[in-house]
Amino acid sequence: MTVSSSSPSLNLSQKLLQAHLVQGDMTPGNEIALRMDQALLQDVLGTLVMLELEAMGLERVHTQPSVQYIDHGLVQADNLNADTYLFLKSACERFGVWYSGPGNGISHPVHMERFGVPGQSIVGCDSHTTAAGALGMLAIGAGGIEVAMAMAGEPLYITMPRVWGVRLEGELPDWVSAKDVVLELLRRHGVSGGKNCILEYYGPGLAGLSAMDRHVIANMGTEMGATASIFPSDETTRTFLAARGREADWQPLAADVGCTYDVEEVIDLSTLVPLIALPSSPDKVVPVSDVAGQPLHQAYIGSSGNPGYRDFAVVSSMVKGRTVAEGVSLDINPSTRQVLSTLIRDGYLGELVASGARLHQAGCNGCIGMGQAPAVGRNSLRTVPRNFPGRSGTREDSVFLCSPETAAASALNGVITDPRSMPMAYPRISEPDTMVMNRDVFTAPLPIEQARLTPLQKTDNTPALPTMAPLPDCLEIPVLLVTGDNISTDDIMPAGQRVMPYWSSIYASAPFTFESVDSTYAQRSEETRLLGGHAIVGGYNYGQGSSRENAALVPRYLGLQAVVAKSFARIHWQNLVCFGALPLTFIDERDAERLTLGDCLMINHLHDQLAKGQTLQAEIVGKGMLELHHGLTERQRELLRVGGVINHLKARQISA
Amino acid sequence: MTVSSSSPSLNLSQKLLQAHLVQGDMTPGNEIALRMDQALLQDVLGTLVMLELEAMGLERVHTQPSVQYIDHGLVQADNLNADTYLFLKSACERFGVWYSGPGNGISHPVHMERFGVPGQSIVGCDSHTTAAGALGMLAIGAGGIEVAMAMAGEPLYITMPRVWGVRLEGELPDWVSAKDVVLELLRRHGVSGGKNCILEYYGPGLAGLSAMDRHVIANMGTEMGATASIFPSDETTRTFLAARGREADWQPLAADVGCTYDVEEVIDLSTLVPLIALPSSPDKVVPVSDVAGQPLHQAYIGSSGNPGYRDFAVVSSMVKGRTVAEGVSLDINPSTRQVLSTLIRDGYLGELVASGARLHQAGCNGCIGMGQAPAVGRNSLRTVPRNFPGRSGTREDSVFLCSPETAAASALNGVITDPRSMPMAYPRISEPDTMVMNRDVFTAPLPIEQARLTPLQKTDNTPALPTMAPLPDCLEIPVLLVTGDNISTDDIMPAGQRVMPYWSSIYASAPFTFESVDSTYAQRSEETRLLGGHAIVGGYNYGQGSSRENAALVPRYLGLQAVVAKSFARIHWQNLVCFGALPLTFIDERDAERLTLGDCLMINHLHDQLAKGQTLQAEIVGKGMLELHHGLTERQRELLRVGGVINHLKARQISA
Repeated sequence: MTVSSSSPSLNLSQKLLQAHLVQGDMTPGNEIALRMDQALLQDVLGTLVMLELEAMGLERVHTQPSVQYIDHGLVQADNLNADTYLFLKSACERFGVWYSGPGNGISHPVHMERFGVPGQSIVGCDSHTTAAGALGMLAIGAGGIEVAMAMAGEPLYITMPRVWGVRLEGELPDWVSAKDVVLELLRRHGVSGGKNCILEYYGPGLAGLSAMDRHVIANMGTEMGATASIFPSDETTRTFLAARGREADWQPLAADVGCTYDVEEVIDLSTLVPLIALPSSPDKVVPVSDVAGQPLHQAYIGSSGNPGYRDFAVVSSMVKGRTVAEGVSLDINPSTRQVLSTLIRDGYLGELVASGARLHQAGCNGCIGMGQAPAVGRNSLRTVPRNFPGRSGTREDSVFLCSPETAAASALNGVITDPRSMPMAYPRISEPDTMVMNRDVFTAPLPIEQARLTPLQKTDNTPALPTMAPLPDCLEIPVLLVTGDNISTDDIMPAGQRVMPYWSSIYASAPFTFESVDSTYAQRSEETRLLGGHAIVGGYNYGQGSSRENAALVPRYLGLQAVVAKSFARIHWQNLVCFGALPLTFIDERDAERLTLGDCLMINHLHDQLAKGQTLQAEIVGKGMLELHHGLTERQRELLRVGGVINHLKARQISA
Repeated sequence: MTVSSSSPSLNLSQKLLQAHLVQGDMTPGNEIALRMDQALLQDVLGTLVMLELEAMGLERVHTQPSVQYIDHGLVQADNLNADTYLFLKSACERFGVWYSGPGNGISHPVHMERFGVPGQSIVGCDSHTTAAGALGMLAIGAGGIEVAMAMAGEPLYITMPRVWGVRLEGELPDWVSAKDVVLELLRRHGVSGGKNCILEYYGPGLAGLSAMDRHVIANMGTEMGATASIFPSDETTRTFLAARGREADWQPLAADVGCTYDVEEVIDLSTLVPLIALPSSPDKVVPVSDVAGQPLHQAYIGSSGNPGYRDFAVVSSMVKGRTVAEGVSLDINPSTRQVLSTLIRDGYLGELVASGARLHQAGCNGCIGMGQAPAVGRNSLRTVPRNFPGRSGTREDSVFLCSPETAAASALNGVITDPRSMPMAYPRISEPDTMVMNRDVFTAPLPIEQARLTPLQKTDNTPALPTMAPLPDCLEIPVLLVTGDNISTDDIMPAGQRVMPYWSSIYASAPFTFESVDSTYAQRSEETRLLGGHAIVGGYNYGQGSSRENAALVPRYLGLQAVVAKSFARIHWQNLVCFGALPLTFIDERDAERLTLGDCLMINHLHDQLAKGQTLQAEIVGKGMLELHHGLTERQRELLRVGGVINHLKARQISA
C-alpha cells in the first residue's frame, strides 16, 4: 500500500496511523480504530486465537498474510507440544493462515525476513510484534482476542499515542551496539516510560544501524511500555530486503520535513558505553563497568532481543581462537533458519562451536523459560529483552540483560566483563549482500474450497473456551490479592516449560495463576468463582510485559471482576476489558493503602456510573467511600456489559 | 596395556578377559572378577554414583580416566539440571574425575573420540557403554554402584559370558548400513538372545565398517542383552584414532588364528536389506519394504545408536537440493562437538538446515525422552537404540528404529520409505582424514591436594541415600505387582524430562515407579515399606534395557524384598542384589500362573537355604509349595545378608 502524504509535515508515525485510520480522531488519548494489514501468531498464544476464530465461526482470515509461527513450545517434553503443532497446522489450513513450523525460527525476525513490508500495519499476539517497526511498519502487540478480531476484518482499537521523537546523532563507539541504545532509553525512562507513546527514531545516527539493529531497538520498546516503535524505511531497509530477495516489497518512508513530535529526545550514540540491566527488571540499567568482575554462570546469545546475523557473527569473531571460561555455559540460540544457514556459510558457526559454546535449536528457547534455566542464584547474562524474576525457568534466578559483545566478553573471562577490555580490535560485522535462501519451508494457505473441508485437530488440551457472565450492576467483592508495582504477565501467568504446554487450556493453566506472587490465589479465587467473584489491587504498571491474554482470561475465569491499580500496562488493560474484567485506577493514589487484603469492595449502579463519567463512587465496606477512575470508551463499556468480546461476537453472529 | 597372548588360540574376548581377570575361572556361567581400567558416568545416573563415592569416603578414584559426561539432562526446564551440573563438577574436582560439560556431546561417541584405548577395560553406569567395544575395548555397562566400586579400585563381578562369534562376510549393498546389521541380529535372536554372551565380530566383512559403524553395532548389542560386544583393533581403528590425533593410543588386537567360539554365527552382509523395528520393541524387526507407505510424523537422526560423522553426512547428501515433506519434523541431533564441527567444516550441516531439518543441541535428547516427543499415535522413525513404549516422552507413542538412510528417505517422502527407492546414486561417505580438533573443552582432574579441599555442591535434590535393612531370614510378603515379559527399566523408572531431573533423589523419584505399568504401585508399596516389604512377579527378561540402578534402588527403598521372574536381564539382576533385593527364577515356569497378585510368598530359613544350594523351598500361603532358583555366589549372598553393597562397604570402612 501507499502511505498518503497529503497532510503537510506529519511525522512518520502520524502518516502510518492516518493511512490505517478507520475511526476516531488522532488526538493523543482518544480511542482510535486502525485497519490491520497483517497478523502474527505464535504457538503458545495462537492456540487460544484459533479457538476464538472457531467460536466466531470465521470462514477465512482477512489479514494478508496471517502467519502462525511455532517458536515458543519447542521442547516437546511430552506429546502436548507436538499435538499443538498438529492443531495449529490444521487451524491454519482451515482459516487461510500461513504456517511456519518448528525449526524456522522466532516469529519476529522471521517475519521481517519473509513477510514484513514497509508501510503496512501488523498486529500480533506477542508483545514484541513491535519489532517489525524496524522496517517502517506500524506494528503493535495485542491480546489474542484483539488479533482474532483483526483477522476477522475488525479494526484494532488503541489509545491514540503521543509520538516521541528520538533523534539519533553520532556513531556508536567500538564495543557498543544496538542493545546499548535501547538499554540507555530504559535507563532514562524506566519500564513504563513509553506508555501510550510511539517511539519514532530518526536522525543521522540511523545510518549506522542495520535493519536488524533497528529490530533490537524496536523490540525492546515494549519493555518501555510503548505502543509501537517506528523507524523510517530507507536505503538500509532496501538493502535488508534485497539481501533476502524481496527488494520489490520496499518503498521509502520517512517523516515529513518540518514535522514535530509530542515528545522530543536526543541520543548522541557516540557517548554511549556498554550497559547492562541488573536482576530483575529491564530498567535497572547501569554501565557494565559498574558490575565488572562478578562471577558468571551462563551467557545466552539470541532471542528476538538480539536476532541479527551480526549479533551472532560478532560473538563468533570474539571467541575465535579462544575458549569459553571453564564452568560457563555460552548458549547460542539461532534466531532464524536463514540466519543459521548464513552463519554456517560464512564460517561463523564453526568458530562458535569450536570455542566450547553450546548450539541450540532456532527458536525462543530460554528467553521464555523453555530450557537453559540457570542454577539457583547464579548470574546469567542474556541478550533477551526481559529479566523478570523466574522468567528464565529458575525461580531464584539472577538474570542480566546486555549486548552480545558484553555477554561474549564475559563468557570468555568467566566474570562480567566490559567488552572494551577485549584484547583485540572491535570486529565490525558487514551485513552479507545475500543471505542463504533456504528452500521454502513455510506452508501457504490452502485454497478456500479445500480450507472449508479441513477439520480442526483438537485434543483434550485445546478445550472450548468457557462462557463468561456479564459484569453485574452491583459489585460486592473481596480483595483477594494485593500486589506491588510492575507486576508482569509472567507473574500472573507463568511461562516456561512446566506451564506453557498447558496455555492452550485455561482449565489446565488455572492452577498456576499468580503462583510466584501468592501460591494460594488460584485456589482461593476458584472458591469465589461462583460466588460473585473477587478483586485484585495492583500498584504501578500492573500487567507489564508480554501480551499473553491468558493473564486476563484465566483470572477472569477464576472470578476476577475488577483490578484496582495505580496504573496499567497497555495491552493487559485492553485484555482485561476484552474478557469482561473492569480495570480501574485510584484517583487519589494514597487510597491504595486503605484498600487491603480481605476488604470488601462495593460499587453500586456500576453501568450507570460507567456511562456517566470517568469517576466511579465505590465503597470499602466498613472503611468508607473511595473514588476510582476508568478510561473506558462506549465500545468498551458495551463489552463489559455483555461479558467481554466473545459474548459480543457471539451475539453479533446470532443476530447476523 | 598390553594384552597377553601367551595362551594359544584364544578369541579376542577371552584375551581381553584374561588380561583383566582378577579372580575366578573363565568357564561360562561362573562369576569372575575383572579389573577395570576406565570408568564412564553420565549425569542422570552419575549423581547417585557420586553420592555413593561420598558415602564410601573415597579419597580419589582409581580408574584412569574416569569421565563424567553431561549428556542426558540438557533441557534445563528449571534450576534442577544446572544445579546438577554444579554438583557433578564439584564431585569431579573432589574425586579426581574428568568433567565433560553440556554441549560436548553423548558420552559413548565422545569417549571413543577422546579417551577410548584398544585393549583397555571400561565400566560405565550406562548400558550402552558397550559401544566402546568398537575400539577393541572390554566395555561393560553396569549399575552405578558397581561403577562406584570399580572407581574405588574394586573389581567388577560378572558372570563369565559365552563368546558368540559373529563372522561378517561380503559387503553391504547400497542403502544398507551398520544399523541394518544389528537390526538383523535382533531380528534373528530377539531382545534377550545375547544374554550372558559377548558378541565378538570378525571376518572379511569388517573391512567395510568404520569405527563408528562398529560403534552402532556394539551399542545395540545391549538391546540383545549381551554383556559386551567386541571388535578387533585393526587398521580401521588406527585410522579412526589418527584422524583424532590419537594414533599413539592404538595397538593391533585380534583373535588368535584357530580360536573357537562358544556360539558361531555368520552374516553375509551382501544379503541384507533395509530393516526397521516396529513399535515398541527393538526386536520387532521387518524389512522396511513391509511397512513402506505408512504416514510419517517425525524422523530423528542421532543418538549413540547412530553417532557417526557418516550417519549425518549421508542424510545431508540425501536431502541436498530437496525439501523435507510438509508436516514432517526431521530432527538432527549432533552426537558430539567434534562431529558437529566437522559437519560444519565439510558443508554437510548447511545442507541439512537448508532442507528444512531442525538442528538440536548435541546430546542424548529425544533418545531418552528429553524433548522431541512426538504427537500421540504418530509414527516416528528414529536411529536410536530403543523404542520401548513411552520412552520418547509420549505415552502413546509409535516409534520405529531404523538406519539414517531409511529415516531420511522417509522424511523426504512423508511416508515410510525403503531408501533403495531414492532417485539418486547411493552417497557413500568417506571418513575425513582429520576431524576438526576443538580446543580442549574437557576439565581435567585437580591435583589431589586441591581435590581434598573441594566441597561437594549439594542441593535438596541430591540427598544422602537411605539406609537399607538386611534381607530377613524369614520372608512373608505380599505379591504387589505381576508384570508381563520384557519389562524394561523404562517401565520401572521412567525417563524423560518430567522425571529425570529427580533421579538424583530417590525420595523425589519414588512416586514415578512403575507408573505406566501400575500407577498405584508406588503408593501401595510405600505402605509395605515398614511392614516387611513386598514381592514382584515378572516374566521373561525382567529389567531389560538401561543400566539405571534406581530401577532397583527405588523399588528396594519402597519395600521390595524379592523379584520372582522367568528370567532377568543381566545388569538389573546385579543391581537388585547390590541393593539387597533377592532375584529369583521359577524352576517350573508353569508356577508363574500360581503366584498371583495379592498372594503371600513365604520363604523360611532364607539365608541357610541360599547357602545350601541353588534351589529354594518357598510357599504360596494357602496354595502350596513352590520351588525357586537363585544363581547367587557367596559374595552376593553376603551382600544380601548385610542389606546390599552400601552397608557392606560402610562396614568395611568402619572396620578399617
